[in-house]
Amino acid sequence: VPSSTPSVVVDPPALGRLALNLITIGSQHRLEDILDECVRLGITAVSPWRQHYEEAGVAHAARAVCERGLRVNTVCRIAAFGAADTPGAWQAALREGYRTIDEATELKAGFVTVTGGGVAPASKDVVAARKRICDGVEALLPHARAAGVALALEPLHPMTAADRGAISSLGLAHAMARELGDGVGVLVDAYNTWWDPNLASEIAALGPRIVGFQVSDWLIPTTDLAFDRGMMGDGVIDLPGIRRMVEDAGFHGLVEVEVLSKRWAACGLKDVLNTVVERFTACC
Amino acid sequence: VPSSTPSVVVDPPALGRLALNLITIGSQHRLEDILDECVRLGITAVSPWRQHYEEAGVAHAARAVCERGLRVNTVCRIAAFGAADTPGAWQAALREGYRTIDEATELKAGFVTVTGGGVAPASKDVVAARKRICDGVEALLPHARAAGVALALEPLHPMTAADRGAISSLGLAHAMARELGDGVGVLVDAYNTWWDPNLASEIAALGPRIVGFQVSDWLIPTTDLAFDRGMMGDGVIDLPGIRRMVEDAGFHGLVEVEVLSKRWAACGLKDVLNTVVERFTACC
Repeated sequence: VPSSTPSVVVDPPALGRLALNLITIGSQHRLEDILDECVRLGITAVSPWRQHYEEAGVAHAARAVCERGLRVNTVCRIAAFGAADTPGAWQAALREGYRTIDEATELKAGFVTVTGGGVAPASKDVVAARKRICDGVEALLPHARAAGVALALEPLHPMTAADRGAISSLGLAHAMARELGDGVGVLVDAYNTWWDPNLASEIAALGPRIVGFQVSDWLIPTTDLAFDRGMMGDGVIDLPGIRRMVEDAGFHGLVEVEVLSKRWAACGLKDVLNTVVERFTACC
Repeated sequence: VPSSTPSVVVDPPALGRLALNLITIGSQHRLEDILDECVRLGITAVSPWRQHYEEAGVAHAARAVCERGLRVNTVCRIAAFGAADTPGAWQAALREGYRTIDEATELKAGFVTVTGGGVAPASKDVVAARKRICDGVEALLPHARAAGVALALEPLHPMTAADRGAISSLGLAHAMARELGDGVGVLVDAYNTWWDPNLASEIAALGPRIVGFQVSDWLIPTTDLAFDRGMMGDGVIDLPGIRRMVEDAGFHGLVEVEVLSKRWAACGLKDVLNTVVERFTACC
């Protein structure tokens, strides 16, 4: 672990609440280098997508995280049910889901993120996509419960309902979580939900069902529907206000920075992480 | 009026329900040429934005529409209140609103579309933007009522909440319309609302408050947040299903085609209009 002084002044207790979703970092870096840099800055938790551990293997990644005293907040993501409108696609989605739960178990993640998937294009049926997401999570639930891994339904922004995830509101995620029962929670992502006219009341109603909270910012203009999120402070989202809502609802877990952005992914590792830490302290 | 045979076979009664929002057509054409082409194809109603009549003047445009036996469905749009967080901007938004109502009156439009406007960026306060939209419509309402022009609140897609319009759901539009009272309705745009988990129940609840219905399609992928809508049939929206919902709710007015698309706007006038008519008949 490098012993150099961090380039930004940070409040260690505040940083103890920070988790870094690794999608924020470009794919040009080794996992170990990213983790070392997290340790250097005082970041204590990370969240990988499969791409971050697939090549080296999940056992290797779990060891790399553990050896550094880090922990895994969530594993991203279960996302194949929505469009799985053939028996073959459905079976593949189930296998993928089991595998993700197993990987999360090995990584000792708190929960698996379920974005669910989009619409089967030919069907033009978003209601059927939502039903499949619900059915898929129900099918995976005994395995997740046995492993002690929560499944977190994440409402995605409605602009990604067609092709990424059709759980398009906190209200829908809540209704699904209620129906599915024990072991299913909701992940509140400020970027995906800030526009919701019922934001405050829906977050309050979720209460203990909130298992995770993510931050990034909405840029004006936004030039890509998936990969142009802003760093906290660069956009129009009242992040401290939404954080208060989730904390008033009883959530006091990690605040995860997840900035899907082609621009930030193209930046150097230290630049991105220094900015994450600085903005987390100043803008969240 | 040209007497050439339309290039597509259309059902005249079905086309009697079609209105063409002129934003669907590129800005390289003269208003008269667009209107002539509408007449040739059997389209009986159009909806201009200010850019379509500003240069020639609204009186000239009103005459051009009237002379051809066409009518105006709506005038787009009142959109400056959301971000008007200074007294100067507020007064400008009010003046702009009065002017749009006067233009709609001269054009004999059924209603004026109110998208309201986005968030004042520095404020990061979408709730305040919505309050300003409500206050602005309330201030304009006596003038609109006296003119006999309805004001139609249009929920825009949440991806445009920051910079175009912060009425982000049918439920919010309905609550605002209820609060504002007589002379205020809701415009249901399938593109903006198809993802809403409460779509069916919200449309049913709106009932007689629905004053307009617009169609276009959601493309996969979508490459621009405002100007990459698809022509009906090219995307994943169940347009006949949503049309049934608004008709079951009691709406039997015009079905307006509004395709904001850089690609379609770059096409020739006849190509676009032939496609509009063909797809309207086949896919809506």
